[in-house]
Amino acid sequence: MQPVMTIEEVNRFLETDFPQIHTDGRVFAVTEIIPGRASMRLDPSERHLRPGGTVSGPALFTLADVTAYVAVLSHIGPVALAVTTSLYINFLRLPKPVQTTCVCKILKLGKRLAVMEASIFQEDADELVAHATVTYSIPPR
Amino acid sequence: MQPVMTIEEVNRFLETDFPQIHTDGRVFAVTEIIPGRASMRLDPSERHLRPGGTVSGPALFTLADVTAYVAVLSHIGPVALAVTTSLYINFLRLPKPVQTTCVCKILKLGKRLAVMEASIFQEDADELVAHATVTYSIPPR
Amino acid sequence: MQPVMTIEEVNRFLETDFPQIHTDGRVFAVTEIIPGRASMRLDPSERHLRPGGTVSGPALFTLADVTAYVAVLSHIGPVALAVTTSLYINFLRLPKPVQTTCVCKILKLGKRLAVMEASIFQEDADELVAHATVTYSIPPR
Amino acid sequence: MQPVMTIEEVNRFLETDFPQIHTDGRVFAVTEIIPGRASMRLDPSERHLRPGGTVSGPALFTLADVTAYVAVLSHIGPVALAVTTSLYINFLRLPKPVQTTCVCKILKLGKRLAVMEASIFQEDADELVAHATVTYSIPPR
Repeated sequence: MQPVMTIEEVNRFLETDFPQIHTDGRVFAVTEIIPGRASMRLDPSERHLRPGGTVSGPALFTLADVTAYVAVLSHIGPVALAVTTSLYINFLRLPKPVQTTCVCKILKLGKRLAVMEASIFQEDADELVAHATVTYSIPPR
Repeated sequence: MQPVMTIEEVNRFLETDFPQIHTDGRVFAVTEIIPGRASMRLDPSERHLRPGGTVSGPALFTLADVTAYVAVLSHIGPVALAVTTSLYINFLRLPKPVQTTCVCKILKLGKRLAVMEASIFQEDADELVAHATVTYSIPPR
Repeated sequence: MQPVMTIEEVNRFLETDFPQIHTDGRVFAVTEIIPGRASMRLDPSERHLRPGGTVSGPALFTLADVTAYVAVLSHIGPVALAVTTSLYINFLRLPKPVQTTCVCKILKLGKRLAVMEASIFQEDADELVAHATVTYSIPPR
Repeated sequence: MQPVMTIEEVNRFLETDFPQIHTDGRVFAVTEIIPGRASMRLDPSERHLRPGGTVSGPALFTLADVTAYVAVLSHIGPVALAVTTSLYINFLRLPKPVQTTCVCKILKLGKRLAVMEASIFQEDADELVAHATVTYSIPPR
């Protein structure tokens, strides 16, 4: 399972083809692409926070979803239009209003379906704030 | 399983205690509270749309999550602070950029955990655009 | 969404092509096939029970999985080989050692993927003992 | 997160308190207990196989569920009665009729809820045959 796109290529592709992730400023960035894996970082803005100063559920959902998309995209290339078919997320600990990282592992990259596992954490990679399983449908190539 | 709050009481509670759902204008509204069930409506704004004119995944996630919250809240009352512990969503059909309804059924309202099933549709209630299962942790009462 | 097989045809197909569900005696039976829906009944034997007299988790899992299979099969016909791609089950109430019913609704029957919702109950259809969401991969037809 | 029971203690506890896992012979065995993690092995018997020689879905479900139970048990001790509240499993590759391993990581061990991630593989630990997320309810201690 070898990536076919670099971090720069993916960031550029997101910019042109997926501009909505930058609606609230440049808060999402791809930080790692290695075989079978991609990582992203969210620098939460006011909009992603909740009273009490935690990162919102929808922000964590979006982070898991976009990182899974980047994992698929970077391994099959920019031609294909993959769409989320399901996302299961467990909220494990109350996140703080700080930089948040998502590491997404490809469990299976089939012809029609990709299954990914996403771990979301903040300062301590062993203390997950959320964990997700994401499936994407892959169009015929 | 009898509701203890009316639609008006829940809408007012959301306004004061959950103002972030109105960040993008008054797009979410509670439309039904009956025993074991609550419904909401999303009138998607530009922000909830994606190129191609579909309602975004995070918008559908938020609709399912908030409707599940309203279902719990309306049946246990405004004192308790319930938090989402997990959400599983299946995206079934491409949504159109139109009014979207979520009907949420309480499957179990336990002492510590509530489990809800949410059906999201648009013009035709038999053609779901998404389906979710949501669990909330309920604080000791 | 019209069924293309009757209860008798499905029961006969299971008998010849899926004999393992009868390993412990004739405990599973299809009870209903209507447009978009199939139901089954489990008469739990000793093997499906746990100390304390409840129906085991694996027995409920199997009931949900087989009923979802029957829902797909009865609507696409016996030629296709559908396989479970995922199953999410919530255990809601402790089941009693009695007859158990699963009602399975087809949420989406796509070309490649079917998504079903399964409600499992015993004496009272409003008091679910378990609730599952099941996805099946459908082979090219 | 330190284990409070050894492999031998857990195996002995399962023998006396959970004899049903040995109904089909001694096919399940605990193979590892380390901080935050437990592993088990399934040596599938005829009963766990399907025509075509694959390990059945219910057998993989049971393996994930029992390993998650062992992960909780080994970290909180044998006094408590933990019960599965939900299990989400993705079937990734067709399993062969051979020894099957489940490695289960504790993502969160809270006061009321434990969340675990289970990876199931056979010869190659990088080629998962299934992946599960399991939640257990933990009784007041």
